[in-house]
Amino acid sequence: MDYQAVLDEVAAAVAPHVGRGEVAGYIPALAAVDPGRFGIAVADIDGGVTGVGDWETPFSVQSVSKAFALALVLARDGESLWRRVGREPSGNPFNSLVQLEHENGIPRNPFINAGALVVTDRLQSLTGDAAGALLEFLRAESGNPAVSFDHGVAASEAEHGDRNAALAYFMASYGNLDNPVPTVLDHYFRQCSIEMSCRDLALAGSFLARHGVGRDGARLLSRSEAKRINAVMLTCGTYDAAGDFAYRVGLPGKSGVGGGIIAVIPGRCTLCVWSPGLDARGNSVAGVAALDHFTTLTGWSVF
Amino acid sequence: MDYQAVLDEVAAAVAPHVGRGEVAGYIPALAAVDPGRFGIAVADIDGGVTGVGDWETPFSVQSVSKAFALALVLARDGESLWRRVGREPSGNPFNSLVQLEHENGIPRNPFINAGALVVTDRLQSLTGDAAGALLEFLRAESGNPAVSFDHGVAASEAEHGDRNAALAYFMASYGNLDNPVPTVLDHYFRQCSIEMSCRDLALAGSFLARHGVGRDGARLLSRSEAKRINAVMLTCGTYDAAGDFAYRVGLPGKSGVGGGIIAVIPGRCTLCVWSPGLDARGNSVAGVAALDHFTTLTGWSVF
Amino acid sequence: MDYQAVLDEVAAAVAPHVGRGEVAGYIPALAAVDPGRFGIAVADIDGGVTGVGDWETPFSVQSVSKAFALALVLARDGESLWRRVGREPSGNPFNSLVQLEHENGIPRNPFINAGALVVTDRLQSLTGDAAGALLEFLRAESGNPAVSFDHGVAASEAEHGDRNAALAYFMASYGNLDNPVPTVLDHYFRQCSIEMSCRDLALAGSFLARHGVGRDGARLLSRSEAKRINAVMLTCGTYDAAGDFAYRVGLPGKSGVGGGIIAVIPGRCTLCVWSPGLDARGNSVAGVAALDHFTTLTGWSVF
Amino acid sequence: MDYQAVLDEVAAAVAPHVGRGEVAGYIPALAAVDPGRFGIAVADIDGGVTGVGDWETPFSVQSVSKAFALALVLARDGESLWRRVGREPSGNPFNSLVQLEHENGIPRNPFINAGALVVTDRLQSLTGDAAGALLEFLRAESGNPAVSFDHGVAASEAEHGDRNAALAYFMASYGNLDNPVPTVLDHYFRQCSIEMSCRDLALAGSFLARHGVGRDGARLLSRSEAKRINAVMLTCGTYDAAGDFAYRVGLPGKSGVGGGIIAVIPGRCTLCVWSPGLDARGNSVAGVAALDHFTTLTGWSVF
Repeated sequence: MDYQAVLDEVAAAVAPHVGRGEVAGYIPALAAVDPGRFGIAVADIDGGVTGVGDWETPFSVQSVSKAFALALVLARDGESLWRRVGREPSGNPFNSLVQLEHENGIPRNPFINAGALVVTDRLQSLTGDAAGALLEFLRAESGNPAVSFDHGVAASEAEHGDRNAALAYFMASYGNLDNPVPTVLDHYFRQCSIEMSCRDLALAGSFLARHGVGRDGARLLSRSEAKRINAVMLTCGTYDAAGDFAYRVGLPGKSGVGGGIIAVIPGRCTLCVWSPGLDARGNSVAGVAALDHFTTLTGWSVF
Repeated sequence: MDYQAVLDEVAAAVAPHVGRGEVAGYIPALAAVDPGRFGIAVADIDGGVTGVGDWETPFSVQSVSKAFALALVLARDGESLWRRVGREPSGNPFNSLVQLEHENGIPRNPFINAGALVVTDRLQSLTGDAAGALLEFLRAESGNPAVSFDHGVAASEAEHGDRNAALAYFMASYGNLDNPVPTVLDHYFRQCSIEMSCRDLALAGSFLARHGVGRDGARLLSRSEAKRINAVMLTCGTYDAAGDFAYRVGLPGKSGVGGGIIAVIPGRCTLCVWSPGLDARGNSVAGVAALDHFTTLTGWSVF
Repeated sequence: MDYQAVLDEVAAAVAPHVGRGEVAGYIPALAAVDPGRFGIAVADIDGGVTGVGDWETPFSVQSVSKAFALALVLARDGESLWRRVGREPSGNPFNSLVQLEHENGIPRNPFINAGALVVTDRLQSLTGDAAGALLEFLRAESGNPAVSFDHGVAASEAEHGDRNAALAYFMASYGNLDNPVPTVLDHYFRQCSIEMSCRDLALAGSFLARHGVGRDGARLLSRSEAKRINAVMLTCGTYDAAGDFAYRVGLPGKSGVGGGIIAVIPGRCTLCVWSPGLDARGNSVAGVAALDHFTTLTGWSVF
Repeated sequence: MDYQAVLDEVAAAVAPHVGRGEVAGYIPALAAVDPGRFGIAVADIDGGVTGVGDWETPFSVQSVSKAFALALVLARDGESLWRRVGREPSGNPFNSLVQLEHENGIPRNPFINAGALVVTDRLQSLTGDAAGALLEFLRAESGNPAVSFDHGVAASEAEHGDRNAALAYFMASYGNLDNPVPTVLDHYFRQCSIEMSCRDLALAGSFLARHGVGRDGARLLSRSEAKRINAVMLTCGTYDAAGDFAYRVGLPGKSGVGGGIIAVIPGRCTLCVWSPGLDARGNSVAGVAALDHFTTLTGWSVF
């Protein structure tokens, strides 16, 4: 596959979509991003990486980090996580409390905010430094030691974090957080603030295409665990648009309000696309269009 | 009306109910109360007060305080409160977040916890010391300068206050709190911790039977405002059992999980009953039975 | 009380409200009503009746009929009805299915559509002709043998009755209807189609002000039952605006989308007001304003 | 792949699960099925079919039919269906009305009952005989002209069909059904009553593994449409257990309360498993276990 040619064609095709949608505006640091940015990278399972556009520009990973935090917890802790969080699509926005109340403080899945807070809480218990452990993992798998937190973004998230605080205290009221709420929120906000480029994220996510094998050839997850993370990404990775994403793109994916999306073609490659304009459900407009176009051009899809 | 005879008969009739139900167990200080306690007092609009049983024993007023906090805010601020809180029955438990999400952070009424937090927030803005202002008011109207906070209960509420913290942060995320969340929670927990006897509460609530006129003859609320607080108590004062309370008792009332209930017979008297055993919806079992029996004996009801 | 003078003043005061709001448009027969109509009548407990405006013009009673159907069932069947329908305010629109699903087919109260269908079903079982029994009762209590069904309205309701059919089949799926769904719907639509004037309805509802005693002096309901129907009207009679109606008007009331509202001042009189323009929650704009003004002028309120 | 050996091993492994769970009891015809039955068949894309156990015994396909009805509508009508039904996982049981009310009569996806009724309604408009068109299609693709309705089951479904009637009338109230409700229900109940064996269903579903190409080599659906049906099956095909099914089995699948499940391995084969005992969410206990085991043995998964 001539990735460069395919990505060039994808970039040309989606150019009219770049700049559409709304940049996430709930914190000033994200609202200031140029909506005209677009980058896409593909990391082959053999380790090569190709990209076009702003593919080497760092951006705020936000919820894309949730896929990696889940992988770290499953790798260390196995299936026990599922006693504290479900793995069903939520059918509700990412920050909803309604379902949480109906289901007694057990979040529907690890990718809505409530579920991600549980994952961070567990990672904190397992490592003593959830955000640090995740950063270290992302540096190692991306091969980029410069990956780091954006402390300004983290502080801004905390300042505007009343909704996430509500989710965390609510779960704490059901006994579903082991660490103090402020600790969990601090690590969660830092985790979301990590800055990476499409290149970094595509490489960091390669283990999901390599059925669990990491950058250095060591196994990070069992084959079965890697498949299962892909399954959770497909059914729950794009908020309440997961069905539509599966329908149009047909790949496991995880999006963030920074405008990034990673997508996995098991056994072949991992993609990362970035463009800050979001649709009404919080997914990058140009990003989804690019992945849609990529799968149409290549004929690659899990279906 | 020979109140003493009526109250004696009420006490005898409800004796089999005393001890039934569950004492509120979410904080140790409340859980330790003797479930066998029962007291009832009636304060006539002319200032006399009569009681039987444990009617002079202080107990934790808890949500009964919400009626007084609402009166203070309406007295100082008039109708503007209703931009921030509704006045419809909620149909949901007192600490539910579901409705709050569906209705964009505007609590359904001032007597569910979320609404009471908004009232406390407003009282804090108006007075600079919400809990203190309320305490002073209750001392003045009850004529008992010994009425005070139970700091142990307040601390215990704070320690087990994750659910209320969730409600407060959730409303803050919608911009519906003006003061910092920890400040609002602190005053709210202290407000709930106030200890008063049936005698104190019946006297303190007399202005609601006197159409707004306070202990010293000065007008605290307009006639219309006093009626309106009674209306809100009737439709919303006993959590999701308000319809049943209206059906059985037929009086405006406000209950608390400490086992106290005040009830108003406009133009006649104010009642307060206390017994710690609660039904499934958080109202005193023997307390509701006593009010039911009182209205049956006297034929007094707003209907 | 010089009712005529009071009603004249009320009519003058609310004239600016007449014509405001939206006439119920879901069936053509209702949509064609002149929004400029306004009438009000008061029936004293001694049997006298006074009115102004269009107080002798028949209109479609719609949901006002639910108060009378409830009275008939309670009179014949006592408290057993409450096993099949609750008596709590719903906090949801009158034709909502959400609560019905959460609560296993038991409607929240007898005045939302689902609850009224249960009442009609029970009345059908008790009488063999629910709509006919209700009509006969309304004729007798109003003293007007000309009160009758509007078969055109009933047919139109049936034609546009998919939502009510959904409610009925849904309850049937929980076993909460005893008669065939089409039978229940037929009687329900006819019950709602009854045409009466303010005069007729104020007289027909006098037993609720007379603590259960009917036109001919015979007891229709016990004193306690009459109070209880008033309580249910106050907490549930005006859909999801019951709290606001209690706050502003302070009387037990029952509204209909034909623009009529009855209200009860226990021990004094029964009012009926009619004006077709409805607010967003289905209550007559000028009707609520008129009752509000009436209680302000007279100082009469249950609170 | 030696299918026979794999299926034998699967059957041996899941034998302890056969008979577990509850046979669907809502209609007598289904309740009478022997819970000890188990069959599994695999239809290779080259047309061969292999099976073990009760793989040639007809059973009631129930909701498995929904995947085929969707295919027929998409084949004839393209994307326009999605204006009337969504394609997001519901997160609620298959017969819930709650979401339907929140979303104005637009069902969440075509595999919950409400959505399937819309599909049947559309198929009726397109063909004039929805159930007949579906039956003809299933006969042709399975190569078994004996496939037929079970009129006893259809009649029994109708007799116990109040819940589905509620769903249909509810959507009709939003204008989301074009045909009369009784017509839609009649075709829906007959569609669900079709009897087929694992052999029949695996063959009939082969076009989904062949990227849209039918039994006779003619294209039934475009490659893209076939992928998209697989995507909808993966995200929505097993009710509110879709996330769990994706996690454990990792294949597009569609289950029915008759105990059947079809699953697709795109480019390879289509599976059908049958065992009547259902889990709490309506999926065959032994069926899910068998598919889980099959994917583990073969290593085949879309992830």
